[in-house]
Amino acid sequence: MPPSSIPEIVIGRLPLYLRTLSRMAAAGKEYTSSHELGQYLGISSAQIRKDLSHFGEFGKQGTGYNIAYLSGQLKRILKLESVWDVALIGVGDLGRAIAHYQGFIDRGFRVAAVYDTDPDKIGMKIGDLAIEDFSKMETDIQKRNIRVAMLAVPFSEAQNVTDILLKAGIKAILSYAPISIKVPSDVHVEYIDPVLHLQKMTFFLDK
Amino acid sequence: MPPSSIPEIVIGRLPLYLRTLSRMAAAGKEYTSSHELGQYLGISSAQIRKDLSHFGEFGKQGTGYNIAYLSGQLKRILKLESVWDVALIGVGDLGRAIAHYQGFIDRGFRVAAVYDTDPDKIGMKIGDLAIEDFSKMETDIQKRNIRVAMLAVPFSEAQNVTDILLKAGIKAILSYAPISIKVPSDVHVEYIDPVLHLQKMTFFLDK
Repeated sequence: MPPSSIPEIVIGRLPLYLRTLSRMAAAGKEYTSSHELGQYLGISSAQIRKDLSHFGEFGKQGTGYNIAYLSGQLKRILKLESVWDVALIGVGDLGRAIAHYQGFIDRGFRVAAVYDTDPDKIGMKIGDLAIEDFSKMETDIQKRNIRVAMLAVPFSEAQNVTDILLKAGIKAILSYAPISIKVPSDVHVEYIDPVLHLQKMTFFLDK
Repeated sequence: MPPSSIPEIVIGRLPLYLRTLSRMAAAGKEYTSSHELGQYLGISSAQIRKDLSHFGEFGKQGTGYNIAYLSGQLKRILKLESVWDVALIGVGDLGRAIAHYQGFIDRGFRVAAVYDTDPDKIGMKIGDLAIEDFSKMETDIQKRNIRVAMLAVPFSEAQNVTDILLKAGIKAILSYAPISIKVPSDVHVEYIDPVLHLQKMTFFLDK
């Protein structure tokens, strides 16, 4: 099935399946089922089978899914077989935390360039990377053919920085700023929004 | 319908609806429809109507949803009519960024206590709050009847800290650590996982 005809919400569940499979593999499991995956994730087994059926036939009646095989297929579908370079913009507290985050490299991403406007920060090291001058970002990202960016700038700067990222050819932006940014329809944006997660939990609490 | 019979995945969409309605209200809109909400979120209008129907009848044939009214109802359902105190554990780069995040208070949450183990940090101010001694956290959280916590500790500490939070009576944990934590079934856990968002976007990119 061509990518455009698969609902985005289905694509959004594939990384959840992949993460769950990785955890199962880390716990020593070799096989799982749509039923078990569903229980782990709070999604019906029928939904999981339907989601995966958009991409092929991955399980066997009786034995279920081979975890290593299904993980490999999901990585292929999500284009995670080689590592994506990611540009990080903004080296405040949050940017520093993101730059030091240990969870990227095993899962297909590498912070490859870090930009800030602060002259006191430019040239400083953050991990193995030197912080680069924001004014050179547009040409630099173009030259290096980076397509993915993470935005850790103050919300008042988020749209300005986005506009420059778009000119540089960025096609996917993960924004930590608590504001909606405008992009053309061929560019993908995701938001880290801790409040969404908190609000999801309070429903279940007694007040 | 009693809370327990509503699928968790439905509850998880309500904060998305609320955030979208807030953005529409901020843009000066007064009314919306399940169709418009659906277009904004990439969810079918039928799904939105079905999700909301678990909780009552909020729209009118022809005029659709009054945004202020539906927002108010969602806040009531999600128990966001008054502000939840949240404990933040860990004041590294990430913890500092969370403590300074401007997006909590308008949406039902307030960082009310901050804990760290580092003697050099204890007593220091972060915004209006003094960083408190982690060793006093359990009794302190109990005394103040805090039920929600955010975890910004190294992943090697995440389970230990969680175990203490559970003893203190915490019932909802938002974890930034890239590791799965174990909690009893009456405690809710959500994870901030930037890689899930990145992986959702790479599907759509050419490599």
